[in-house]
Amino acid sequence: MTGSQASPARYALHYWPSIPGRGELVRLALEEAGASYDDVARRPAAEGAGVPVMLRVLRGELGGLRPLAPPVLVDGELVLAQAACILDHLATQHDLVAPGPRARLEALQLQLTVADLIGEAHDTHHPIGVSLHYEEQQPEAARRAALFVRERAPKFLGYLEDVLARGGGMHLVAARFSYVELSVAHVLDGLAYAFPRAFEGWRESIPGLLALRERTWARPRVAAYLASPRRLPFSEHGIFRRYPELDVDPG
Amino acid sequence: MTGSQASPARYALHYWPSIPGRGELVRLALEEAGASYDDVARRPAAEGAGVPVMLRVLRGELGGLRPLAPPVLVDGELVLAQAACILDHLATQHDLVAPGPRARLEALQLQLTVADLIGEAHDTHHPIGVSLHYEEQQPEAARRAALFVRERAPKFLGYLEDVLARGGGMHLVAARFSYVELSVAHVLDGLAYAFPRAFEGWRESIPGLLALRERTWARPRVAAYLASPRRLPFSEHGIFRRYPELDVDPG
Repeated sequence: MTGSQASPARYALHYWPSIPGRGELVRLALEEAGASYDDVARRPAAEGAGVPVMLRVLRGELGGLRPLAPPVLVDGELVLAQAACILDHLATQHDLVAPGPRARLEALQLQLTVADLIGEAHDTHHPIGVSLHYEEQQPEAARRAALFVRERAPKFLGYLEDVLARGGGMHLVAARFSYVELSVAHVLDGLAYAFPRAFEGWRESIPGLLALRERTWARPRVAAYLASPRRLPFSEHGIFRRYPELDVDPG
Repeated sequence: MTGSQASPARYALHYWPSIPGRGELVRLALEEAGASYDDVARRPAAEGAGVPVMLRVLRGELGGLRPLAPPVLVDGELVLAQAACILDHLATQHDLVAPGPRARLEALQLQLTVADLIGEAHDTHHPIGVSLHYEEQQPEAARRAALFVRERAPKFLGYLEDVLARGGGMHLVAARFSYVELSVAHVLDGLAYAFPRAFEGWRESIPGLLALRERTWARPRVAAYLASPRRLPFSEHGIFRRYPELDVDPG
């Protein structure tokens, strides 16, 4: 999708074409790195691309380790799933984390905590099962969302704000930019989309994170990406969904 | 807890002292490695150990990156949380995965998928919130557990069985032992404890995984650990809880 279209892309990314989802965590890192990648499922089936190719990857027809779910990144013989695992790989390839094992591990640890937050945000609208529609689990969603807004989201956000402050306020890992900041900025956008009322209540306790998001979105390649048609909008089909009945007063 | 008690342990592990939980994934790797570790929260407060020390670690009073939740492994200046991140580190230190980036990444990917399965197993009894008792979310738990037993667990188990078969049937990653096998064996034990009736239904579709578990539990250091008082039993306070009303017919 980006980089030189004349030469074949280094990476193939496979993810649902109509939602940001967990694929967006990978896309943001690829864009920041200026890496050439083919966002396969977003190209038409007539070009030998599209969702059918992604489904073939998920059936293990591409060789390598069969993935259970997208996003999947293919880098030569490597077929990687799990966003945090893909990011760990991209980070070492594209200087998206400070060199050395300690920074790599700290970034992985934080990314996994961000992944936990994303999972809990998702489960506010799907507390019973992913095979059911939201409307089939609405009362349960309301109960879970209230606890998310009042307890869980503040816990995660307060933790990340504290990690940022302990690191000097500018960066989360090793006093320099890392891919984790892209994911944190995206999650803040997602939470603000899904829970605009609650987010207003959370704002005053996360000044550092809000400034981090601003700096992150101002990075030249990232800013260009956000302004491009490659950036997909949030909607009520993804992880972060705006259901006003779940957006309660954070109290 | 293990290894030479005369010299200081290389690692400090901090985890709740009364449940296997996610700490067990780390413990199994430490035991297989024959590493010396201090299971801090399981030693008495009178020795300057116990849960209060773990809580200090969680408040970030130990330096390093503050963790959000246990398990936490301290290795010199490294303070690591998130079981999959800790295991990624231990693997490279103790040959718990084949050398090279590909095997490390594939193990990480599988471990994160196992972590997703563990999370979903936990949420069968806590679908609404971790701050509520099971009894406060029992009807919701029954709905979620039925979908877990009939859809989610079979999906994860079928996936792992397929990965094993594709790799030749003996190992999950790089045709040799890796720490992921310890976690998979433990999760099978946990599922059999929590869902004995459903597990009987799952058995016939996972012959490879059941044999893998048997081989894993027969590894000398692991077998010695399982027979020791260091191994904590499952109970209704951990991730895998036996609530007969959730253990439905897998259909």
